[in-house]
Parts: sequence; structure tokens; C-alpha cells
Amino acid sequence: MQLAFSAADIAAIIQPLSSKGGTSRTITGIAALSAARPGDLSFLGNPKYKTEVVSTAASVVLLPPDYTGEPAADQQFLFVEKPSVALARLCARIEQLLWPKPAPGIHSTAVIAADAQIAASATVGPLCVIESGAVVGERTHLQAQVFVGRNARIGDDCWLMPRVSISAECVLKERVRLQPGVVVGADGFGYEFVAGRHEKVPQVGNVVIESDVEIGANSTLDRARFSHTVVGEGTKIDNLVQIAHNVRIGRHCLICSQVGISGSTTVEDYVVLGGQAGLAGHITVGKGSKIDGQSGINSDLPPGSFMKGTPALPYNLEQRINVLRKRLPDLFKRVDALETELSGSKKPSAPSHS
Amino acid sequence: MQLAFSAADIAAIIQPLSSKGGTSRTITGIAALSAARPGDLSFLGNPKYKTEVVSTAASVVLLPPDYTGEPAADQQFLFVEKPSVALARLCARIEQLLWPKPAPGIHSTAVIAADAQIAASATVGPLCVIESGAVVGERTHLQAQVFVGRNARIGDDCWLMPRVSISAECVLKERVRLQPGVVVGADGFGYEFVAGRHEKVPQVGNVVIESDVEIGANSTLDRARFSHTVVGEGTKIDNLVQIAHNVRIGRHCLICSQVGISGSTTVEDYVVLGGQAGLAGHITVGKGSKIDGQSGINSDLPPGSFMKGTPALPYNLEQRINVLRKRLPDLFKRVDALETELSGSKKPSAPSHS
Amino acid sequence: MQLAFSAADIAAIIQPLSSKGGTSRTITGIAALSAARPGDLSFLGNPKYKTEVVSTAASVVLLPPDYTGEPAADQQFLFVEKPSVALARLCARIEQLLWPKPAPGIHSTAVIAADAQIAASATVGPLCVIESGAVVGERTHLQAQVFVGRNARIGDDCWLMPRVSISAECVLKERVRLQPGVVVGADGFGYEFVAGRHEKVPQVGNVVIESDVEIGANSTLDRARFSHTVVGEGTKIDNLVQIAHNVRIGRHCLICSQVGISGSTTVEDYVVLGGQAGLAGHITVGKGSKIDGQSGINSDLPPGSFMKGTPALPYNLEQRINVLRKRLPDLFKRVDALETELSGSKKPSAPSHS
Repeated sequence: MQLAFSAADIAAIIQPLSSKGGTSRTITGIAALSAARPGDLSFLGNPKYKTEVVSTAASVVLLPPDYTGEPAADQQFLFVEKPSVALARLCARIEQLLWPKPAPGIHSTAVIAADAQIAASATVGPLCVIESGAVVGERTHLQAQVFVGRNARIGDDCWLMPRVSISAECVLKERVRLQPGVVVGADGFGYEFVAGRHEKVPQVGNVVIESDVEIGANSTLDRARFSHTVVGEGTKIDNLVQIAHNVRIGRHCLICSQVGISGSTTVEDYVVLGGQAGLAGHITVGKGSKIDGQSGINSDLPPGSFMKGTPALPYNLEQRINVLRKRLPDLFKRVDALETELSGSKKPSAPSHS
Repeated sequence: MQLAFSAADIAAIIQPLSSKGGTSRTITGIAALSAARPGDLSFLGNPKYKTEVVSTAASVVLLPPDYTGEPAADQQFLFVEKPSVALARLCARIEQLLWPKPAPGIHSTAVIAADAQIAASATVGPLCVIESGAVVGERTHLQAQVFVGRNARIGDDCWLMPRVSISAECVLKERVRLQPGVVVGADGFGYEFVAGRHEKVPQVGNVVIESDVEIGANSTLDRARFSHTVVGEGTKIDNLVQIAHNVRIGRHCLICSQVGISGSTTVEDYVVLGGQAGLAGHITVGKGSKIDGQSGINSDLPPGSFMKGTPALPYNLEQRINVLRKRLPDLFKRVDALETELSGSKKPSAPSHS
Repeated sequence: MQLAFSAADIAAIIQPLSSKGGTSRTITGIAALSAARPGDLSFLGNPKYKTEVVSTAASVVLLPPDYTGEPAADQQFLFVEKPSVALARLCARIEQLLWPKPAPGIHSTAVIAADAQIAASATVGPLCVIESGAVVGERTHLQAQVFVGRNARIGDDCWLMPRVSISAECVLKERVRLQPGVVVGADGFGYEFVAGRHEKVPQVGNVVIESDVEIGANSTLDRARFSHTVVGEGTKIDNLVQIAHNVRIGRHCLICSQVGISGSTTVEDYVVLGGQAGLAGHITVGKGSKIDGQSGINSDLPPGSFMKGTPALPYNLEQRINVLRKRLPDLFKRVDALETELSGSKKPSAPSHS
């Protein structure tokens, strides 16, 4: 996108503690220290890149207060408490330009049930479908081709991107952001095996998504068998994640891409699940636990657990075993040698031994 | 959803063998024994929860015939052959209220090719697209924003939820239920490496889905290179599952979330694949086999196999090895000790050594 | 689909080096040698099936020049340099019949911003949405219900299948083919942990897809935090694949189904990633590397690596370790025996033993 800020514009947005040097350049891009060219803004987000500041070609550099070097010619240093947070603030401003707040109103091609309640300040984009009894809150934005089922309730200040589908009776609280293709409220996967066939157990609960939750593209959340599947306040879910029926996820969790959580499992607050990890059903993962990518969890974990592997072990033990595992070929040789030596040592002079 | 049944309504639906006690409460919810409050219905689905029946606050409890306890005040016991099946029957009734059968007809915003054949009893919802030559059967429901490609054939009594996509020439038999976002008939992943580039092998077969199949949200099934990719009668597939080209899945299988099945592999009847399991291409998994979650299968399996791990081993062996694996640090120490002792024991001048 | 070619039609399409025998049959299907019936075409794509040629019922068989057998009655052999490539050419012709090139033009139900630029030769199907400033190139086909965001640019001769979503500012070069449900340009998964909450780091970069890329159904590609997420020329991506923000994929890679690539990782040219493999963030996988299915890669790999397992080891080592792993129960027994024997050998009554 066409970004064009003066150093003064940027200072106005990020409110630096102090500044050194200056540049006449217009800032048209953001880049890492080593990749930046004149006209770019860069930042020292991680101390290990400190040495790259001296050689960066960036015209504006965001730095922590304790950075001691001097800017080059036509280069401005802006000192901030936390450069990565300052950068986030700048990006937030850019995002507003990238996606300007749409005008309120309902697009002429949207199909809205007569008894649906759409807030006057909401924006319903082209080719959305809103079924009977559904509610859409203040300033909420349904971008395009979104489906909202019967009696579903979408709170205030939500943003549903193209092709999001919310099934009947599901509930989103406030400031929920759903990336394209998210499916909220598909049937849970439940069957009874009767006379050689899988008889469907109807799934008549719903999904409740608390405030400030974000869910990534094409992720799927199943409605409860009865009662609720719940995602707690402030939790962030990446792309292609599967949340099964009656799962309860706590507050402020991070769930990375392609994770799968099986039915009726509870994930407590502040848990981090690495990419492609899998959780069995009917277990509890304790508060603040960290699960490494691709791990498989099949039993309860106490709070603060840090697990890795399938089946998962404590992280350090798993790492140690993985080192020893590589030495298995050698270990087998050593045991062969011991056996040879011992059998050898048993020869003639030890008949009594056997 | 607003559930409101009298105990009599419920008895009428589930037809109990017998009853004990009674309640004046209106049943407005369903909950597990320990979570239930007055006004809820609960059930003893698994004997291990038997002790919870005594203390449950549920107003109506579904119990097996051999349960001997007495109901509390204002509490009714209903005895049924299989409580979980009786509950399923009750939920089926609730589901009818949750998703009332829509009126037949084609929504004015649907885009239907002139030569498509839509049964008079079918319901085509808003913003669906049906291409030339496609067929939609009796009482079938395309909910909203569904795509049905050229010459595709959808049988009777199917339910395609929002944003389902059926590609050209694909076939669904009867009572097929597809959750939101399912893609049937994407191109298979086939290329020939020619002169340093991957030249596409056009995929000109189709997908055939037999009767009574259910497929979960955002799952993908690829069309065959030629001939057919097949899902057998009564098989149930969960969310985010990948079925590659020319795969043949048998009857009454259960395929859990995020499973991947590679090209030309055959899965026989009554197979159960755990979540995130992966099957290599061109293999056969024998009838009634069970594959544990996250397992990797790369060779043929005889009927009745029960496998775990990557690469998978028989379940019990894999479990045993996983126990020993945890003892590797100790095993290395023991072998070190043996070597020390043996080298020591060989030195003639070291009797004191032991 | 209804396929109907005479042997002469087929010869005209694949241009054989030579021919033997002949058939009066009309070719109505394609099948493997063992499955083929009269009226089918088959081919010897892999030498190991050579013996099946003698018994195949196929009416036309594509064979390599060095095949020496004779055709049966009413059977024609066509000799070609590479049967699988010849078959691909035939299938390409069938594909043209399966999906005839649509007429140029914009469907009356598509919703197009006034300032979007749609080439006159492009086809925009029913219920597509194209936002302000977007560009659609010559002969490009948006099939149905496609979303193209603000200022996105789609090049010439692309095919976007139903329900594809391209977010704002993203770029597709030429001949890009996206299967149904693909999401290009969802937000990357980036947050700063501030005061007990995950504060969103706005993702203001885009996705750039080079020419001749194909992406499978419901796969997701995230926009860069800033700058670009890139998929290189000629790379083919299967279904349900996750490409995180700032990932850079080289040219002519093959990325199988359900692979996940974490943020800022680089995959060089001609890499092959097996199904369900996972790559950690901020690493580089060297040119021409092969990663086995379900493997986990968490560090840089030099060019030409061939890796397997989680954490991944060189393929042959991992295979060897997997063999020894199966022998762990035996190894523990052997070490027990050594300890018993050695402790015996230490008994005073055996000094002669050394």
C-alpha cells in the first residue's frame, strides 16, 4: 500500500521520549534494520540486532532509551520505551488507511430477514445473508458474503471478514475479529453406534465467543452437543484451527495454526498451544501451560506445564531423550561389545558359571 | 435456543420403559449430572458417573433399567434401554425446532442456469449458484451461498450448509449433510516434472459421495485424476479433513478432524482414524482398523489393525516403547556403569575393585 | 463427464511415435491397466506394471517405445516418449471440455466498485465482489462468489474458483490458479503481550503470488506484518496448507496438504514438503531439500537436505533409529542380563574369573 509519512508525522503518532538527528526523507516503507533502504523506517525490537543499527540505511530508526550510538547523515533516531510497541502503534495508524472505516448501512444486495435487528451504526456489506431473529451490534462490520444464522447475536464493534459463517444461535460478544472463511457453529462430531451404523447425535448447543477474540482464516469452531462451546476473552486463534464441541478455552490464550482441540476439553487462561499440536478429548490443560508445536496431549496437565512430543513429556526431558535417541545406534553397538566381552571372559576358566 | 418441555413432553418423545417420581418443572436445558440445575434434564450415559445421580439437581434424569436409586423431591427418573440414545432422540426433536424445515422454492437472489434441474420440493436459499446441467433432488436444502458446478448431481434429502462448494460433475447420493465451507471436487494434486517445471496433470475424474455421509466444516475432497474419488455409505468425516484424489473410503468409517489421506489410498469399511492422523498414498487400511491420533501410516494394514505412532506400530508395542523411551537416560547410565565395571574387572591388579 | 474419443481422435491429440493394432471402440473412459474395461484407455506409466499390459482389457494403451509385446484383438497400442506426459496432454483436452472457457463479461449479480479495472476479456461470474481500486487482468476468470479486496491486483489468465478471497493490496501475477475457498491475505498472527493482554500488531504488508502458482482448496496465506509474503513462480501448494506472514517460498516447490509454515521462514527453490510437515519460524530450508510427511523442522537446513521425524533427522539416520527403537524392549532385557551376570561375576568365590 502507498505509505507516505514525514519523520514529524511519525513522531506525532508514536510520541517518542526523545530524538536524535533528522531526515528530509518521506517514509514510504518499513523494513528490518539490515533490509532497510533510504526512505524506510526500521526499529531495534530485539537487542541481538543492536550491531545492525550502525549500518542500517533506514531514514528513521525506533530505538530503546538506552541505545547510545549516533545517527548517520540524513537519519533520525526516535527513542521509545518499547520499539516493537511503538511500531505496532504506527502500524495501527497505517491499518486505518488500509481499511478505512466503512460508512454505516446495509448494502442493497444483502439479504436480511425482516425480523433481524441490525444496529443503525453497523455496516452490512454486499451479498451478506442474515437470517430470522439475528442481531448485529453497533458499529459492527460484516464485510462481504458473510452468513449470520437464525437467532445468532453479533455484539458491538466486531469485524467479520468475507465469507465468515456464523450458525444459528451462536453468540459473539464485543470487538471480535474473524478472518475470512471462519466457521462458527458447525455441528459437533457426535454419533451413537447402533445396529452397525453411526446414528447422529444432534448438536443443539451453541458457540459463545467472548470479547476481544480474534480467529484466523478458515478455522472451525463446533457448536456444543448441548450447552456451550466457549472461547474466553482476549484469546487469539490462528488459521485452520479446529475447536470441537463443548471445548472451553480460557482468557488470553494463544492458539497457533492447525492446532486441534478434541471434544469437551478445557484449556485454562494464558495457555499457549504451538502449531499443529493436538489435544485429546475430556482433559484439562492448566493455566499458563505451554505446549510445543506438533505435540500430542492425552491427559490432564497442571498449571504451568511445559510439554513437548507425542505423547508429550516435560520439555527438558523430551529434549534430553531426543539427544539420547540419536545415540541409539551407538548404544546397541556398546551392548553388543559388552556381551561379547562378557561371554569371552566366561570361556574355559568359568565352567561353573553357567 | 429456547428449550421448554414438560416432563410429559419428554416422556412422549423418548418413550421410557418406566418412570419414578415426578417434577412440576419445565425443562429448559440439558446438562451433565454434576453441572445440572433445577429445570435441566440429565442422563447417565456412562456407568462410571453412577454416583453422581444421587446428588444431581436435574429435574429429569434418563437412567438405564438396572439403576436402583430413588429420585429426590420434585425430580423424575425416566428409565430407558440406552440413555444416550434416548437423549439423541430428544435432541433430534430439539434440532427440528432449531432448524425448522424450510419452505420449498428457489430464493429470488439465487443464480440458476436455465437447464439446471431443481426438484419442486427442494429449497435453494439466497445467493446460491447452480451451473448448467446440475441436478438438485427432492427435499434437498441448499441453505445459502452454496455453489453447485456444471453437471453436478445432488440427490434427495441432502442438506448443504452455507458456502459449500460442489465442483463440476461431482455426485452426492441421498441424505448427505455437508457443514459450512466444505469443498467437494477441487483438483487433485498431480504434476509431471518436465524441464525443471511442474506440469499440471489435469484432474478430470469426479467425487462420488454415497448416502448418509456427513462431512465437517472446511473439509476438502479432491476430484479423481480420472475415474472417481469415493466416500462410502454412512461414513462420517469431521472438520478440516483432506481427502486426496482417487481415495476410496469404505462404509461407516469415522474420520476425525484434520486427518489427511493421500492419493489413491483405500480405507475399508468401519475404519476409525484419530485426529491429525496421516495416511500415505497408494496403501490399503483393512476393515475395522483403528488408527490413533497423530499417527502416520505408510504401508498396508490388515483388517482389524490397531496402530499408533509415526511410523505407526501395533498400539500395545508403541505404548510399551514409549514407556521404555522415558527410561533412556537411565539406560545410558547403566551401560556406562557396566563398561566401567567390566574394564575394571579385567585389570588383574584390581581385585579390590569390587 | 461424458468422454467420447475414437482411437484416431486420441492419436491426433497425443501424436504417438508409432502404433500397433487397432480398435473400433469409442474411448469413453480412462483407467489403470488392471481396472480398465473395453472402451477404456490405459497407459504404462510405471515399469513395475509392465506385466499387466498383457492382460489389460483396455482398448487403447499408451506405451513407452521400448515395450515389445503385441496388442490383443480390437486393441490398439500407441507408443509415446513418456506415457504419463501423453496422458496429461489427453487430460488437458478433456479438461477443456469439462470447463469450457467462459464468455468474457461481468455477470449482472456481481458487485463491482466503480473504480475497479476489469479487463474486457476477463470473466467475472455471479455474486463476485470486487472492491475499490482492484485490477483484474486479461482473460482472467473469477468463477463465482469470489471476493477481491481494495487495490488487489489479479494478473492475466488467472482462474479463481468459487469462494476464493483475496484481501486488500494483495498481488497475483499471471496464470495463477486458486482452488475453491483459498484465502490470500488474512492477517498474520502477531501480538505484543502488554499488561496481561495480547495487543494486536497490525499486519499491513501484503501477499505476492508469482506466475504459474497453483494453490489448493481452503489453504490460507497471511499478509506480511509489513513488506511481503511471497510464493515463487511455478510453486504448487495442496489443500489446507498454512503459510504464515512474511514467509518466502521459492520457485517450483511442491507443498503437500496440511503443511504449516511459520512466520518469516524461507523455503528455497525446488523444495518438497510432505503432507502435515511443520516448519518453525525464522528458519531457511535450503534449495532442493525434501522433508518427509509429518516431520517437524526447527532449524536451518542446507541445500539438498532430506529429513524425517520430529525433531527431524537425516532421513537414513531416522529410518535406522526407528528400526532400533522397535528393539528397545529387547535391549532393556539384554542390559538386565548383563547386570545380573556381572554382579554374579563379582562374587568373591570367582577370583579366577578375570
